[in-house]
Amino acid sequence: MTVMKGTAVEEEALAIATAETCPLASAQTTAGRRTVIEIDGRRVGGESFALIAGPCTIETREQTMQTARAVRDAGATLLRGGAYKPRTSPYAFQGLGQEGLRLLAEAKAETGLPVVTELLDVADAEAVLEVADVVQIGARNMQNYALLAEVGRAGRPVLLKRGLSSTLEELLMAAEYVLKEGNPDVMLCERGIRTFENAYRFTLDLTAVPVLKERTHLPVIVDPSHAAGRRELVTPLSLAAAAAGADGLIVEVHPNPAEAICDGPQQLRCDEFAQYALAVERAAALAGKTLGAGGSVAVASPPEREPALA
Amino acid sequence: MTVMKGTAVEEEALAIATAETCPLASAQTTAGRRTVIEIDGRRVGGESFALIAGPCTIETREQTMQTARAVRDAGATLLRGGAYKPRTSPYAFQGLGQEGLRLLAEAKAETGLPVVTELLDVADAEAVLEVADVVQIGARNMQNYALLAEVGRAGRPVLLKRGLSSTLEELLMAAEYVLKEGNPDVMLCERGIRTFENAYRFTLDLTAVPVLKERTHLPVIVDPSHAAGRRELVTPLSLAAAAAGADGLIVEVHPNPAEAICDGPQQLRCDEFAQYALAVERAAALAGKTLGAGGSVAVASPPEREPALA
Amino acid sequence: MTVMKGTAVEEEALAIATAETCPLASAQTTAGRRTVIEIDGRRVGGESFALIAGPCTIETREQTMQTARAVRDAGATLLRGGAYKPRTSPYAFQGLGQEGLRLLAEAKAETGLPVVTELLDVADAEAVLEVADVVQIGARNMQNYALLAEVGRAGRPVLLKRGLSSTLEELLMAAEYVLKEGNPDVMLCERGIRTFENAYRFTLDLTAVPVLKERTHLPVIVDPSHAAGRRELVTPLSLAAAAAGADGLIVEVHPNPAEAICDGPQQLRCDEFAQYALAVERAAALAGKTLGAGGSVAVASPPEREPALA
Amino acid sequence: MTVMKGTAVEEEALAIATAETCPLASAQTTAGRRTVIEIDGRRVGGESFALIAGPCTIETREQTMQTARAVRDAGATLLRGGAYKPRTSPYAFQGLGQEGLRLLAEAKAETGLPVVTELLDVADAEAVLEVADVVQIGARNMQNYALLAEVGRAGRPVLLKRGLSSTLEELLMAAEYVLKEGNPDVMLCERGIRTFENAYRFTLDLTAVPVLKERTHLPVIVDPSHAAGRRELVTPLSLAAAAAGADGLIVEVHPNPAEAICDGPQQLRCDEFAQYALAVERAAALAGKTLGAGGSVAVASPPEREPALA
Repeated sequence: MTVMKGTAVEEEALAIATAETCPLASAQTTAGRRTVIEIDGRRVGGESFALIAGPCTIETREQTMQTARAVRDAGATLLRGGAYKPRTSPYAFQGLGQEGLRLLAEAKAETGLPVVTELLDVADAEAVLEVADVVQIGARNMQNYALLAEVGRAGRPVLLKRGLSSTLEELLMAAEYVLKEGNPDVMLCERGIRTFENAYRFTLDLTAVPVLKERTHLPVIVDPSHAAGRRELVTPLSLAAAAAGADGLIVEVHPNPAEAICDGPQQLRCDEFAQYALAVERAAALAGKTLGAGGSVAVASPPEREPALA
Repeated sequence: MTVMKGTAVEEEALAIATAETCPLASAQTTAGRRTVIEIDGRRVGGESFALIAGPCTIETREQTMQTARAVRDAGATLLRGGAYKPRTSPYAFQGLGQEGLRLLAEAKAETGLPVVTELLDVADAEAVLEVADVVQIGARNMQNYALLAEVGRAGRPVLLKRGLSSTLEELLMAAEYVLKEGNPDVMLCERGIRTFENAYRFTLDLTAVPVLKERTHLPVIVDPSHAAGRRELVTPLSLAAAAAGADGLIVEVHPNPAEAICDGPQQLRCDEFAQYALAVERAAALAGKTLGAGGSVAVASPPEREPALA
Repeated sequence: MTVMKGTAVEEEALAIATAETCPLASAQTTAGRRTVIEIDGRRVGGESFALIAGPCTIETREQTMQTARAVRDAGATLLRGGAYKPRTSPYAFQGLGQEGLRLLAEAKAETGLPVVTELLDVADAEAVLEVADVVQIGARNMQNYALLAEVGRAGRPVLLKRGLSSTLEELLMAAEYVLKEGNPDVMLCERGIRTFENAYRFTLDLTAVPVLKERTHLPVIVDPSHAAGRRELVTPLSLAAAAAGADGLIVEVHPNPAEAICDGPQQLRCDEFAQYALAVERAAALAGKTLGAGGSVAVASPPEREPALA
Repeated sequence: MTVMKGTAVEEEALAIATAETCPLASAQTTAGRRTVIEIDGRRVGGESFALIAGPCTIETREQTMQTARAVRDAGATLLRGGAYKPRTSPYAFQGLGQEGLRLLAEAKAETGLPVVTELLDVADAEAVLEVADVVQIGARNMQNYALLAEVGRAGRPVLLKRGLSSTLEELLMAAEYVLKEGNPDVMLCERGIRTFENAYRFTLDLTAVPVLKERTHLPVIVDPSHAAGRRELVTPLSLAAAAAGADGLIVEVHPNPAEAICDGPQQLRCDEFAQYALAVERAAALAGKTLGAGGSVAVASPPEREPALA
């Protein structure tokens, strides 16, 4: 046995020194620039407001294609959709898995929208990375460090959801697990926290938006669908999030929510999505952001940056 | 001893029946009309967005007058200011009391702004009612039933703040204590709830705005100053609240926050208030509301009402 | 107008100095002695464990007498019972009021047990003080400063319940409002806090017991009935509270809980109370405390004190 | 594309039917028997109270051996120790890893105590299973379904910690992910939840103990060390947990906590552990449980069972 206490203590002293005295990667900026992530011609961050929309869960080919076309036509910038679904109960539907990924790939091919989908298990990383333009890490896995390191190494943009009882500091530290592996493209996502109030599923914490923007150069996205759990609340919360300065929204849309397998009540209808997108665009403008800015033309020009971080 | 168990049980049965089967006054509407409160020519509710602004605490004549003029000039509709201050510690400054009320009266005389001020103790009701156009009931007193009944009987409009850990149902029931006494003019105020997150003083619960609007015809006001505890957060949270459909904001303003007795860090500066009010006006417009609608002319016309409550 | 800012600022500076530099009355001790409160021959605090038991609400003469006798016979040290009941809804049964107080007085005359009952409204203080040996301030009124000052001036022992979302610091500061008026006899009462968990009404916070004992010399009582909301949980939580070092318990008991007006499911049955009291006695002994220590004999001897507060 | 909506919907319908109509494995019992887990001659559950003790983190050979001997001599039934440590910051010390596992194996060989250690990453499963008699799943990983399935398949007893904001229902569902793989030996562990109170790190939720015992036949363990974060609170909370009916405790012990790498302030000292164990033994007896029951002799006899689950 050769482990020396001194060694471990020194290692720890170093670790603490690193954490306390070195600026975190999520806070360090070059000339105060904010991170703007380029995803196949779409930008997230800076003055570009992202509207990420699509079904909660990939269920069928028709549902997927119909939703993808509807959100693309209304101005969504990315397509979301769950192939692997984290479920509280092991007996609940766990998603279509690889079949779901194939449907997402088909929707992307047809609409041109880059795809955001969740990775739940390191074992599925290869399959998910074949399709995902952005890899989502769900709230339950915010501190699944093996998974964070995996997507850090994968080098693909990451959408990291805040744990339902995680502090902002813990969220930033979770992002650090990805950044540390050399992957700079992390979007943070507020999706509602757990409080005493039971009139809604979660309490959307919009104070997190300006506070995160003070502490990090990473883009901040808001998920109003999971927070509220009801379609009626999605529009007011989306406008509020955009007005508060969020860099984007991720919302659930379904052609026929009444028949959705998961979370039907919180999904917007395809036929109301265009009106929703217009309202969001106006709210984002209040905070100086433009929906869908970037686009294929923008790829050629150098990424724009926001003014220096205070 | 003449108390019969039967009697009490019957009384309770009746009470439960009343609560469960009779619609609550806060939910009952005539033809789905929302309550619009007229305060000396200013309207709160419906399409009229209220901007209630002023010092946290009345400190001096100059501070009060300077703030009152600044907020009036920038378009505020009511003047707020604390003469009696609820303080966690009995050794902290408790407000100027009657002297503070006199300063508020003077500010009202000069600017024409109606006054919102807090009543803490039934014993001070007479003095407060001499000056207050709207009586504020603070978060700590949301379930002080003797105080609620007192302002119910006083017949003056009431601004009722949500307790920092009160559910929406409890807030509505507290309003019911006022309404039951025959006073229909209650504004509900979300001011941040207590959660696990300690990056800010309270977590502003903006989901409460659309949910309260579903459950009651009473106007819903948001206090971003106490929730956030920091000036930098007041603007984004105000815009978010307005975009979410709030009927008004109550914010703290001070000529020189660095010298404020209480809560300096959360008070806006007088000289930045006009810009703030403009931004709020644009956000309220997103939700179909007009800042300062009403005014002395509007008093003559019949109050406008929103479409029927769902 | 003669208010000078300087004056107010100085006053505040003094106030802060007082709060920060002077020890709080709840923390200051003479030679590290803990407060032991003598109530008509019963002691609360130090080595004396208090078992405060009785109906949630005074309903009828028979219910009151039957419960009072049962708890007295089983070793309870004080009788609890609500005459004025704080209710979330104004339409719910509000207690028998003065009739309830008369029944409590009769139960006290017959059993010799001192009475603990709640004061809700300053206007009822005279009537309540005629009967109450200990005045209870409920969780909703923990920061009702007018009421705290009133019971401070009354000089009667006070049982102060923690607000359902109040921090320990706020609880201690609320006690300070009573102590400041010259009333040294305050018992603090943990009764469950509001958390995200909805499997029970409140989450009993037993960590509060040892932490309060570190910070104050005042006795700490636990209410397991309101916290749990279910009879089955009252015994395990009572044993846990006693084992954690609480100075007493306040529990609800009813001859026939199924017919209780309020909170039937959480009330122990009279016929199971003796067994409950025995179990509590054993748990209190684990923490070095004796149930019912004191008694009429003990009054003559000088109050015993615990070792110095750390 | 061959995915039929019908199929998915049917699958989901079946899933819901399963979850709602079939009793969960954690609730189903044979003749109301509670699970008693045999670990190398030690029993957990039923009338056997488990005292699981050891260092937070394996640091050095001497620290590990010294602690293992001290807790064995004082009557601990299992040895705990972290080789892989989940850390909020990626820059903090992450544990000794395989070196830590080797030290645990050595401590087990010398003291005869079975070992409880955490598995963080599926990739480390083989190494951890070589040493662990009980595999701990930490609070952050309570909903890491890939990891739960892995330990389900491994067939080794599992200590499953409640997530810091997980409801009891979610905890039971997480257990179900393990049970579903055919592994019946799961202990549930309450370790403090996140609330508004910041006077302590977490709020130990002891109401969870009797409520879990109503809902499941699985043993319920309490971790007072992480909840409180301070040594002074560990004894009162341990006695409270035992008095509330817990089936065991998992506590941290260190020869010299002031020099511990992680969580020094919450670790008991080796030289005070024997006194601690005696106090725990008395508290467990209050709830009808015996510390260390089982032992090598008991292995031969049939497992004893508690009375039927209500």
